[in-house]
Amino acid sequence: MKFKGRDIVSIKDFTREEIDYILKVSEEMEKHVKRGSDLLKGKIMATLFFEPSTRTRLSFEAAMKKLGGECIGFSSAEGSSVAKGENLNDTIRVVENYCDVIVLRHPLEGAAKFAAEVATVPVINAGSGAEEHPTQALLDLLTIKSEKGRIDGLKIALVGDLKYGRTVHSLAYALSLYDVDLYFVSPEPLKMRESVLHDLKERNITYHEYTKVKDVISDVDVLYVTRIQKERFSDPAEYEKVRGSYKITLETLKEAKEGLIILHPLPRVEEIDFAVDHTPYARYFKQTYYGLLLRMALLALVLGAVEE
Amino acid sequence: MKFKGRDIVSIKDFTREEIDYILKVSEEMEKHVKRGSDLLKGKIMATLFFEPSTRTRLSFEAAMKKLGGECIGFSSAEGSSVAKGENLNDTIRVVENYCDVIVLRHPLEGAAKFAAEVATVPVINAGSGAEEHPTQALLDLLTIKSEKGRIDGLKIALVGDLKYGRTVHSLAYALSLYDVDLYFVSPEPLKMRESVLHDLKERNITYHEYTKVKDVISDVDVLYVTRIQKERFSDPAEYEKVRGSYKITLETLKEAKEGLIILHPLPRVEEIDFAVDHTPYARYFKQTYYGLLLRMALLALVLGAVEE
Amino acid sequence: MKFKGRDIVSIKDFTREEIDYILKVSEEMEKHVKRGSDLLKGKIMATLFFEPSTRTRLSFEAAMKKLGGECIGFSSAEGSSVAKGENLNDTIRVVENYCDVIVLRHPLEGAAKFAAEVATVPVINAGSGAEEHPTQALLDLLTIKSEKGRIDGLKIALVGDLKYGRTVHSLAYALSLYDVDLYFVSPEPLKMRESVLHDLKERNITYHEYTKVKDVISDVDVLYVTRIQKERFSDPAEYEKVRGSYKITLETLKEAKEGLIILHPLPRVEEIDFAVDHTPYARYFKQTYYGLLLRMALLALVLGAVEE
Repeated sequence: MKFKGRDIVSIKDFTREEIDYILKVSEEMEKHVKRGSDLLKGKIMATLFFEPSTRTRLSFEAAMKKLGGECIGFSSAEGSSVAKGENLNDTIRVVENYCDVIVLRHPLEGAAKFAAEVATVPVINAGSGAEEHPTQALLDLLTIKSEKGRIDGLKIALVGDLKYGRTVHSLAYALSLYDVDLYFVSPEPLKMRESVLHDLKERNITYHEYTKVKDVISDVDVLYVTRIQKERFSDPAEYEKVRGSYKITLETLKEAKEGLIILHPLPRVEEIDFAVDHTPYARYFKQTYYGLLLRMALLALVLGAVEE
Repeated sequence: MKFKGRDIVSIKDFTREEIDYILKVSEEMEKHVKRGSDLLKGKIMATLFFEPSTRTRLSFEAAMKKLGGECIGFSSAEGSSVAKGENLNDTIRVVENYCDVIVLRHPLEGAAKFAAEVATVPVINAGSGAEEHPTQALLDLLTIKSEKGRIDGLKIALVGDLKYGRTVHSLAYALSLYDVDLYFVSPEPLKMRESVLHDLKERNITYHEYTKVKDVISDVDVLYVTRIQKERFSDPAEYEKVRGSYKITLETLKEAKEGLIILHPLPRVEEIDFAVDHTPYARYFKQTYYGLLLRMALLALVLGAVEE
Repeated sequence: MKFKGRDIVSIKDFTREEIDYILKVSEEMEKHVKRGSDLLKGKIMATLFFEPSTRTRLSFEAAMKKLGGECIGFSSAEGSSVAKGENLNDTIRVVENYCDVIVLRHPLEGAAKFAAEVATVPVINAGSGAEEHPTQALLDLLTIKSEKGRIDGLKIALVGDLKYGRTVHSLAYALSLYDVDLYFVSPEPLKMRESVLHDLKERNITYHEYTKVKDVISDVDVLYVTRIQKERFSDPAEYEKVRGSYKITLETLKEAKEGLIILHPLPRVEEIDFAVDHTPYARYFKQTYYGLLLRMALLALVLGAVEE
């Protein structure tokens, strides 16, 4: 395995062995959270966020700073040179001179891949277009592994907008490296994309499709909830019909399997009732802590600060 | 006294003994300004500014960095996840996983109190709604104490918009812990709120109400000037009438008591003539230096880096 | 020579001896880029950018952080106290209490000079109005010296908008301290300002004016390309006519002198064809690396961290 200098563009670029190693390094990062570390002293991370994503940006910046590194960057396209008409190629070729690693968030699909090809420093994809958000998928795996003790053998439901949600695609691919049963629960118009299903079949992953949470809640070990956006429906009435049945409430959880954990990539709007926050099922806030550990691990790995 | 892990939400939460201790620690911070310090190395402060306040934000960030700590955050609600509809509860429960202390600025009253209840890390209120701005009040006290050598026994005038100005309310409460004479100078429609006056009476604080600066200028030791906003007047003509008489000029200061100091929470617009800047009375810029010391002290205290 | 505490406002404030020394210190900074340094530990730089300039801001921040210093600031006037009506005088007098050096970008000419007069800490001009951008001129010199081995004796063409472009004015003055031949290549309405030509004459600098790149391409050692903005032309048809002939392409470069280097202050829009990026002539991205070194040197010098 070779991580130093490597780009983190797509979850598909990683073998199971590599992912397991990343998860192991992530767990070792916990000791640096409380007191900080000098592991990345003198290193600079550039966060180029062409669309805002406060949570992801803060998570990466906290990760870098807990390891003694520094950050530069911008948090939205406004106010950056983009307004003057600069192209991504030039931005990357300039910024790579100021930093040791680039973290990119971009509205266009393929932007991270393109940036990685151009840059001489490693590029980490923090979300580009509707397709890929690999660090989210990795932190989802880390959460499942840490909270359930394992990934293999689990029954995992992905709930909500499975057609357009970028996190669920990366996560489905990541999970397909493990021996899991997948449950896809979504309204008819937002079913998991055929291309993803096709790939899962090829990998011999068992999956089931449902349209109601209540049909899977007593079976699954992990409930991964995502938002359903109104604008995805051509008919607002259709949205209103669907909306309620995908809200996770205490009522929904009455039938829950023992040890169920609920995850969510956040921000949540109304998919999970606030009352659920206080149940032992809720792990969506702790999930962000695992995100910190995971990003610390990735930064340390691509900057060559961890023995491989 | 116990500061480690404590929230700084309202000036009303502090005893005089505690405030005196904070001021003492603030004075000791001066030695760290010139050369920096490692007192908060490895610690991260999150500045969550849901409304912009450059001065307050830069002051907190400089304070953290002079002590060797690091900062993450955002400087306005735009571009944060708030635009995606996230609620304050979730923002706090996420960000607390990335940091050791949260500094919050929010347009709604009660937001800091709410955040402090939710968060497991200490929360410092950097202004929420029209009610409270405790670190401003504390730095005002520090300025008075440092520049006049004491607080007890002083005659202190608060001038301008005493009805809506959030700094004057916190300051009035803070001063009520000391043995001072308060002079409230404001246009009739912007008089100090009854609720504040009521509390002062209960604490046996002597106060006087005036409508003209010239009636108090030869009596007071401290002139605390605040801005009068046009939009507070239903009749623009009323505002025009009042405007001039609240502007502090060299003329106003001809009758000033010896040793008078003029403070202002800033930004000033036209309440103090630029010519006043060059008089020995002007301390409103030095006041921001005391703000740095005060915030260094608070951060060191709530993060447990100072012996108590 | 005395740099500690000095303002960097105009390129005109420097002697050739001083500039040569700055370039020498810049070269010595290279060793700190890879591993970082503690040279400016405990120091804080404030970046006050009243208009956005991502590249310049990131360059300064990376420079400060590579030397172990810290940064505070804002990246556009929006969201700063300016929106509340604060004047530059007050902003400077406040911020100087939070930092050890101020880096200012401002849309108004003279703003940096004014700030330098007000501030007790050193002020570095990162671009103010149409007139001055001294650190850009210095990094241009550093690029030429490093890439060509010398500045004296070179033939240097400045191409594009020579009337309004702020970088070319500072650069022309900087170059006038050396023994160079200058070639000014621009459309008729965007010719180099008379005031600059006048000063060059006084300094006995040889210069030539052209309207076509092809007339100089086989003569010059350095081609410094700048953007031509559509809005500078009263007649859009005039702009369209000019546009193509100022674009540097592989075709343009067929006649290039051996060892020619092409520079550009960036961002480029369409003045240089992407195909040129892959030729040995292209140095405009490496130029930004020299910008990092140059700004590290300036910060170390004005903060007194380098022996003089």
